[in-house]
Amino acid sequence: MNEKRLDRIYEIMGEKELTQILLTDPFAVFYVTGKWQDPGERFFGLYLNRTKNRNKLFVNRLFTVEEELGVEKVWFSDTDNVMELVSGYTDSSCTLGVDKNLPARFLLPLMEYGAGLSYVNASDCIDQVRSCKDEQEKGKMRAVSLLNDKAIGLLSKKIRIGMKETELAQELMQIYRELGCDGVSFPPLICFGANAAVGHHEPDDTTLSEGDCVLIDIGCKKDFYCADMTRTFFFKSVSARQKEVYEIIKEANAKAEALIRPGSKLCDIDKAAREFITDKGYGEYFTHRLGHFIGMEVHEKGDVSSANQNEAKPGMIFSIEPGIYLPGEQGVRIEDLVLVTEDGCEILNSYPKELLIIE
Amino acid sequence: MNEKRLDRIYEIMGEKELTQILLTDPFAVFYVTGKWQDPGERFFGLYLNRTKNRNKLFVNRLFTVEEELGVEKVWFSDTDNVMELVSGYTDSSCTLGVDKNLPARFLLPLMEYGAGLSYVNASDCIDQVRSCKDEQEKGKMRAVSLLNDKAIGLLSKKIRIGMKETELAQELMQIYRELGCDGVSFPPLICFGANAAVGHHEPDDTTLSEGDCVLIDIGCKKDFYCADMTRTFFFKSVSARQKEVYEIIKEANAKAEALIRPGSKLCDIDKAAREFITDKGYGEYFTHRLGHFIGMEVHEKGDVSSANQNEAKPGMIFSIEPGIYLPGEQGVRIEDLVLVTEDGCEILNSYPKELLIIE
Repeated sequence: MNEKRLDRIYEIMGEKELTQILLTDPFAVFYVTGKWQDPGERFFGLYLNRTKNRNKLFVNRLFTVEEELGVEKVWFSDTDNVMELVSGYTDSSCTLGVDKNLPARFLLPLMEYGAGLSYVNASDCIDQVRSCKDEQEKGKMRAVSLLNDKAIGLLSKKIRIGMKETELAQELMQIYRELGCDGVSFPPLICFGANAAVGHHEPDDTTLSEGDCVLIDIGCKKDFYCADMTRTFFFKSVSARQKEVYEIIKEANAKAEALIRPGSKLCDIDKAAREFITDKGYGEYFTHRLGHFIGMEVHEKGDVSSANQNEAKPGMIFSIEPGIYLPGEQGVRIEDLVLVTEDGCEILNSYPKELLIIE
Repeated sequence: MNEKRLDRIYEIMGEKELTQILLTDPFAVFYVTGKWQDPGERFFGLYLNRTKNRNKLFVNRLFTVEEELGVEKVWFSDTDNVMELVSGYTDSSCTLGVDKNLPARFLLPLMEYGAGLSYVNASDCIDQVRSCKDEQEKGKMRAVSLLNDKAIGLLSKKIRIGMKETELAQELMQIYRELGCDGVSFPPLICFGANAAVGHHEPDDTTLSEGDCVLIDIGCKKDFYCADMTRTFFFKSVSARQKEVYEIIKEANAKAEALIRPGSKLCDIDKAAREFITDKGYGEYFTHRLGHFIGMEVHEKGDVSSANQNEAKPGMIFSIEPGIYLPGEQGVRIEDLVLVTEDGCEILNSYPKELLIIE
């Protein structure tokens, strides 16, 4: 058990007047115990009780959790009634905080067995802690972002006329392997021309032509942490309109990043980029929030959007990714990951953002 | 909307006296609508009401769901209160059946907004339908299993002394790509020697030596459907004990498969293999259920275990995978996928099960 992280979780549980929580998201359990276990459809849960020494880790006998983790293990089999078992350890006289991702197939039986007096989504207790990365995590996020920077640099050399989006995606996978990445944060988004205007377009057989924009939104994983970046190139030529849109996005990205420091409201960072794009006449084509938190998961709790009034704090890592999407025509997005420091921010992606025409 | 599948779902809803259900598992929504959408942490839900024409598909504006799906779409944005929105469409005067995988972060607010009078896990309504594959699905399961058979055949030629488990896993990934697979059902389990006795052992730097068993549990995906098979080879030589264990497992696999026909209880199929292994003195080393259902997901609802009293029905596809795991020594598992037919079963994996010594 990572006692430092645990203490921060207990602190927030205290603020929320929560005595007990049940974490079941594999990332949440890993974050506290240091043990990675993907339970599939099976149950795997960490029960934390801040007032009594009765934390438990519920483990299926099929899982290999041999190491001493600093928490008592409760073993069960596929044929056991696991939720009844868990309910025997929780305190039915007070609210049970549950994991945001606890599936209904577990939550409804817990309710039936009276595991708690009432139930609330308690993931904020851990997500708040996870949102501010500790030194070990910062190191891993820097390292994986550096790999991603290298990868996009190598990938940019592979772009050639007539190639398919899927081919470029395969080149990327090869590059990631050669760089020693542990996989991808998400399937790569490689979009040529008008495909770049389609939200979450997946690589298909579209071939590259002169004058196309090439939107590349990619992320590798390393040591459990996720990279995520976007660059948009132009192939062989760039039109006046493409250039105009590109420069607006580059400036919007810079304006937002310039605002990031402890105390800045996340909604104001979103606003800085959004107002600039709107002033330039493209507001309606910037169709998503400015950014999302990231760490062990590519999308973690928290975002940089008009709805988030929270302030940036040291250790937070999130994306800054303004975009303009002109249906049937083109799309441009530039995305970095940024780490909030004591007095500003550290941009984790150093791959250039100047307009690049691939020859 | 696949009206045939929908009718079968309505029928089961009727049996369970459920008027309304909310499906959110991407596979469940895909199964009914034909539209694949991985929503990540966002909401994506299909509301079905069997008594009134008020089915709805709740779609985030960021998703590309342009096609006509035969169901009215309700669009929302990241900044909307989605569960309040959904609760405006459900019938608060009767029980709301929810998806088994509906996360607490959605279920708890639905309860707060009074989306239903009460809440039950209603996934059985769709899982029962999904457990019996229709003709289209059978074709896809045959095709993907054939690919898996081919892959293990090609992979067996790549096994050589001193290689690491991770290297053989990489060879497999290359083979899958060359065969045109769409990815894997699960990360390949490649276990040399004593690693084969460890449940869910992931490939590591262990190197292959003469006399090792080579347990290969792998599955590719194609057209949304999952393969899954296991074979255990021996490298250069086989000991008397290895041979004994192998032949027991081969026979246990055969005995179970011989029992499969409509009307056979799934627990009895498990029992046939388990009793045989127990009679041979290895019962305590067969530490898991005999099989699991499979289709679009590698583990679907339903299993072949002592706890499952349900009968096999035509169209069901599940694995038969007896194993004996001798800690510190070796492990043997043989796994096929089988399709229950009108009068028996069709074994979807035709790769041989005779003891094979790789030279």
